[in-house]
Amino acid sequence: MAKKRPGEFALIERYFRPLATERGAFGLADDAALYRQRPGDDLVLTADVVVAGVHFFADDPPESIARKALRVNLSDLAGKGAEPFAYLLSLALPGNWTEAWLKRFAGGLAADQKRYGVTLLGGDTTKAAGGLTIAITALGRVPKGRMVLRSGARPGDAIFVSGTIGDGALGLRLRQGTIVGKARGARHLLDRYLHPEPRTALAPVLRGHASSAMDVSDGLVGDLAHICEASGVGAEIGAHLVPLSLGAKALLAADASALATILNGGDDYEIIATVPGSSVAAFAAEAKQAGVPVTRIGMIVARKGPPVVRDTAGKVVKVSAKSHTHF
Amino acid sequence: MAKKRPGEFALIERYFRPLATERGAFGLADDAALYRQRPGDDLVLTADVVVAGVHFFADDPPESIARKALRVNLSDLAGKGAEPFAYLLSLALPGNWTEAWLKRFAGGLAADQKRYGVTLLGGDTTKAAGGLTIAITALGRVPKGRMVLRSGARPGDAIFVSGTIGDGALGLRLRQGTIVGKARGARHLLDRYLHPEPRTALAPVLRGHASSAMDVSDGLVGDLAHICEASGVGAEIGAHLVPLSLGAKALLAADASALATILNGGDDYEIIATVPGSSVAAFAAEAKQAGVPVTRIGMIVARKGPPVVRDTAGKVVKVSAKSHTHF
Repeated sequence: MAKKRPGEFALIERYFRPLATERGAFGLADDAALYRQRPGDDLVLTADVVVAGVHFFADDPPESIARKALRVNLSDLAGKGAEPFAYLLSLALPGNWTEAWLKRFAGGLAADQKRYGVTLLGGDTTKAAGGLTIAITALGRVPKGRMVLRSGARPGDAIFVSGTIGDGALGLRLRQGTIVGKARGARHLLDRYLHPEPRTALAPVLRGHASSAMDVSDGLVGDLAHICEASGVGAEIGAHLVPLSLGAKALLAADASALATILNGGDDYEIIATVPGSSVAAFAAEAKQAGVPVTRIGMIVARKGPPVVRDTAGKVVKVSAKSHTHF
Repeated sequence: MAKKRPGEFALIERYFRPLATERGAFGLADDAALYRQRPGDDLVLTADVVVAGVHFFADDPPESIARKALRVNLSDLAGKGAEPFAYLLSLALPGNWTEAWLKRFAGGLAADQKRYGVTLLGGDTTKAAGGLTIAITALGRVPKGRMVLRSGARPGDAIFVSGTIGDGALGLRLRQGTIVGKARGARHLLDRYLHPEPRTALAPVLRGHASSAMDVSDGLVGDLAHICEASGVGAEIGAHLVPLSLGAKALLAADASALATILNGGDDYEIIATVPGSSVAAFAAEAKQAGVPVTRIGMIVARKGPPVVRDTAGKVVKVSAKSHTHF
C-alpha cells in the first residue's frame, strides 16, 4: 500500500465490526457466522453483486453505493414476502480507496441496517482487479412454506405494481445524458436511480394475498415475462395504467423514447404481484395500510407467452420482453 | 457484447442451472432460494471472494479457478466443524470471457459439488469492472451448539495442524519466480497453490475434540495468533515440528528465506486445532481414521500474546505474527 491506510484486520475492526451486532457474527472475529433458525420459519437467501461502472458510478457518494448494494438484495427478499434480517458482505476495493471513503461507505450501511432491521453477519475484504465490486448475500425469513414464488400466477389474477415505474432507468438516462432532463422531477428520478427503496413493508401483504411476486429490477415487462414463464401463463397490461411519477410523465410527454425505458429499463426495485380476484380488495387495503401505493395494471391470461402491452385504444404497444441485464 | 455469446439468462440456464440440484434453488428460476433448517442443526455461513491477480492468475485453468473459489469457502466451514451443503455464487466476468471458458468453469464447480456434497443455491452474474471476481457464500451445518470457535483454546491444550504447511505459499513463490524451484516436489507445490484441499473430513473430529480451530488461509503463525487473541491465551510452537512436504523441505534446505513463507505465507487451507490433553489420543486416532494426517506442533500457554516459535535448541525464531492478507 502506497498511502498509510489501515490493513484488512484494522479496517474490519474499525468500520465493519460495529455493524456486526448479532451474537452469531462473533464480532467478525471468527471465520464463519452462526445462525439458528427460529422453529416455524424458512430461510430465504439471495445474492446480488454490484459493480462500479455497471450498477453505479464510481464517483457516487459512498453512502449511496453502500445503500444500493444492500437494497437491491433487500428488494429481492421483499418480492418473496420475506422479512430481511442479516447479510454477508464481500468487498473488492480498488487501489485508490481511502479511509474517508470507507468510513462513509460503512456509515451508509449502518443507516440502512437501522432502517431495515438487518445486521452484518460476515464477509470478506480484498483488493479489486479493477473497480469497486460489492457482493452481498442477504438472508430473510418467512413463516414455513410461505415464500412467494414466481410460479403461482393463474389466469384471471390481477397484476399489481407498487410505487411508480421507470424512475430509476430514467434517472440513469438523465445521468448519462441520453435523455434531456430539464423536466420537473428530474432530481427525483436521479435520486430514485441512486437510492432504490425496497418494499419491505409489502412483504407480509404479499404473503397473505399474492399468487406470485417478484421485484422489478430488470424491467417491468421483462420481469413480468419471468412470472409468466415460471407460471405457464400470459399477461395483458395497459401501458396507460402503469403508474408514473411526475418526473417520468414530464419526460414521456417531451420524448416518446422514454416509454421503452419506463417499461423495460429496470432499476425500479418496485414489486410486481399477481393477486387472485377474491383477494384484490384485501390486498389493496392492506398495502395501503402498510404505506405502499399499489396500482392494478393488468391481468394474467391463459395464453402462454410474454406479456402483451396495450394502449388506451387496445392497440398492442411493442415492447421488447427482453429484460435489461447488467451484462 | 462484441462476440456472439449467450446472454445472462441463457448462460445461467445452460451452465449454472444444472448445478442447482436442490429443490430450494428453484432451478435458479426465482429471485431467491429457500432453505429449511433441519431441527437440531445450526447453520454456519461464510463468505470469501477471490479475485484475478490477487488470489489466482487470470490464465489459470478455469476449472482450477472455480475449485479454488469454492474450496477456500469450504475450508472455512471445515475449520468450524461444519458439514458443507450449499453455496451462492456471485460472478463478475471480465469483457473477454468466452463460452468455452465458462463451460470449463462450471465443469470445475460440478466436479467439486460431487466431491464435497454441495449444491448451488443461487447467485448472480454480471460484467466485471476489470478482472474476474468470484464471491461465494457457503453454507454448512453443525449439530446445535457445536460450531467450533476460535475462542475456546485453553492453556495446556495441544496445538495440531493437518497435512503439510507452506506448500501453497511456496507454490505461489515458485510461480512468481521469487524462489528457485528446480527442487523435487515443485510440481506438488504448484498444484497445492492451485488446488487447495479443504479438510472436510476433519470437521466431525474437530467437533468431537477441539477446543478451538480454524483453517490456515493467511499463514500459520498469523492464524494461530487469531486463536490466541480470541481465546485470551498465548502459544508456543516448534518450527521443526511443523510438518513439511518433500518439496517444501527441499526448498527450505536450499533457501532459508523459505521458512518465513512456510510459517506465514498463507494459502495452506489446512486446519489448526487446539485439543485438551485428555482428548489428544482420541483426536489423533479419529483424524487418522478420517484419513487426515495431523501433527502436534506445540502447546497453548497462559501468557497472552502472539505465538512464540522456537527452534530445536529452544531459541526463539522471529516470525512476523502479521498474517498475510490479500489486501
